[in-house]
Amino acid sequence: MKQAVGLEDEIHYYLCPKFEKTFSFLGKKWNGLIIDVLLQEGTMRFRELARQIPKCSDRVLVERLRELEQDGIIDRHEYPESSLIEYSLTEQGEELAPIMHSIHSWSEKWYAGLKK
Amino acid sequence: MKQAVGLEDEIHYYLCPKFEKTFSFLGKKWNGLIIDVLLQEGTMRFRELARQIPKCSDRVLVERLRELEQDGIIDRHEYPESSLIEYSLTEQGEELAPIMHSIHSWSEKWYAGLKK
Repeated sequence: MKQAVGLEDEIHYYLCPKFEKTFSFLGKKWNGLIIDVLLQEGTMRFRELARQIPKCSDRVLVERLRELEQDGIIDRHEYPESSLIEYSLTEQGEELAPIMHSIHSWSEKWYAGLKK
Repeated sequence: MKQAVGLEDEIHYYLCPKFEKTFSFLGKKWNGLIIDVLLQEGTMRFRELARQIPKCSDRVLVERLRELEQDGIIDRHEYPESSLIEYSLTEQGEELAPIMHSIHSWSEKWYAGLKK
């Protein structure tokens, strides 16, 4: 939210691109769940992650992980000697915990009131 | 997030419709800003609200306010004797404050890392 104080002390509010961008990636299907799983389980191999999110196809999961990596939310560790690939949250990703927590609490409490 | 414990203590995670729904309305353009303004300013007439969000057209603002009212986020008070209409957050809407706050803090801190 940007505020600009104008004449007569009137405050105008403008869309904040930071807020919008955060929503656009958190709200994208599967991203919230991928972040939740990594918050809860820590470092995971691709296969483990895929097995724990059975409804998300491998193709989509690969795509989301790549996007989240580009956004600095997750780290991808390659171990060339064993062809093992592991994923974990970056510091930036770990710090999403309070957001995820507050959205889950609110949703649990108020879901019934939302229009379906 | 729903969890189902399966064989061998393996946990599977599924999309939570509550979480998805909360994101779908919070992430819709202008909704976050409308909620922010009402959190900050309290009860407001339509004209005041429209003046403080100058980039949002009246038509879109009316539409968003109606949707937020249907979702139980805002209250619309009509005073027939004066044709005054006022908007304010419901209890459910006020309780979005921690979500809004945590998203703003995170976005301020980490925006530079997000892919544009």
